[in-house]
Amino acid sequence: MTYCVAALASSGIVFASDSRTSAGTDEIASYSKMTLLETPGERVIALLSAGSLATSQSVITLLQRRRAAFMAKPTLYDAAAAVGETVREVMARDVAALEKADIPAGFSFIIGGEVRGETPRLFQVYEQGNFIEATRDTCFLQLGETRYAKALLQSAVGYDTDLRAAAKCLLLAVEATRREDVAVGAPIDLLVYEKDRFDVALRRRFEEAHAYLTQLSGVWARGLAELAPRAPEVAWH
Amino acid sequence: MTYCVAALASSGIVFASDSRTSAGTDEIASYSKMTLLETPGERVIALLSAGSLATSQSVITLLQRRRAAFMAKPTLYDAAAAVGETVREVMARDVAALEKADIPAGFSFIIGGEVRGETPRLFQVYEQGNFIEATRDTCFLQLGETRYAKALLQSAVGYDTDLRAAAKCLLLAVEATRREDVAVGAPIDLLVYEKDRFDVALRRRFEEAHAYLTQLSGVWARGLAELAPRAPEVAWH
Repeated sequence: MTYCVAALASSGIVFASDSRTSAGTDEIASYSKMTLLETPGERVIALLSAGSLATSQSVITLLQRRRAAFMAKPTLYDAAAAVGETVREVMARDVAALEKADIPAGFSFIIGGEVRGETPRLFQVYEQGNFIEATRDTCFLQLGETRYAKALLQSAVGYDTDLRAAAKCLLLAVEATRREDVAVGAPIDLLVYEKDRFDVALRRRFEEAHAYLTQLSGVWARGLAELAPRAPEVAWH
Repeated sequence: MTYCVAALASSGIVFASDSRTSAGTDEIASYSKMTLLETPGERVIALLSAGSLATSQSVITLLQRRRAAFMAKPTLYDAAAAVGETVREVMARDVAALEKADIPAGFSFIIGGEVRGETPRLFQVYEQGNFIEATRDTCFLQLGETRYAKALLQSAVGYDTDLRAAAKCLLLAVEATRREDVAVGAPIDLLVYEKDRFDVALRRRFEEAHAYLTQLSGVWARGLAELAPRAPEVAWH
């Protein structure tokens, strides 16, 4: 499992991802799931990936190998379609062998950023190569273990949330998920893109047991513990 | 999907369950997932069920038909074993036909209560008929869509939590789950058993949009929205 999340806001996009890759509980490793492609002053594109490491690494490698063509797409929609095409190419190469061995090949991507001439956009590309776009109504996208943090994101992140608040909330979402799922682990990558800047406003990596993550974890646990006491009593009879 | 939860405390046990049964999104119905068997002054046993309605109804029907034998088991451990035996009996009868049609037969039970001579005990019976018992360390058990409320329960419900607080927290857990999963729905059943009383302290049913559930839903959403603002700022550079 994996946890990646990105939120589209009026002032930019925030991305956060864990780094745990596992083949069962006895074989875990760390790989960043965040890839950044930039043409300063012109476009910034970030990718988050979940699922089969072999498949998603191949997609990223092929995109980087064809970087010039990928970074020349006229819109972010076309870039998302190019990710989808590359996904289909890798699946076509590997899926038969994986299915024969009953190994899941499934994976998905988040792609977001800004291309000069557009506003920031955010997409999720499925393993079939098709894709959806985040909107004002549903401005965040998640990959992997999406359930533990969903209510938090729904309650606290909207299209008008400022980027610092969204960054905090996305890290809190990663921490909330990491506490429940051993297949989600540090380092945690955070990337903030501010609209119309065409370079990255903030990129940080939080290692295991980083003091800030520990603070967020405490805010989460204490905050949940305080909810029931705040609720009115159940009428007893 | 379903959501059932029970918590064992030093002063008794609290049970809560939803009532939605669905065969896809276009065929939903309401069935209580809570069954109560009592011999006043002697023993109280509550059952919660999740999974295939046909299978779990058959298990309950057979237990009720053999009520005298079931209610004569010397301990709650033996009662849990009897549920497991009945589970195996129904699975042996139905599973081949269901597997042939690729219909999931899976289900599970929570069984808890008190038999005179013991303290209150709480078990989860799997579809294979084996079972586990809740302990002081992990005093709550969940069935169905267990992820949305897990962190809340971990943070707010312990073996020493009093029954009124535990009842509020379990209803909050049901509401938190119901908000996210259309396969979890009202009416919501609540049952509270107080240690050494050998009858039920409280049994309530909350219908859809009951004012108390709406209040809990608001506590949950507002509480989550306040968490990120309470967290310290991310160091920006």
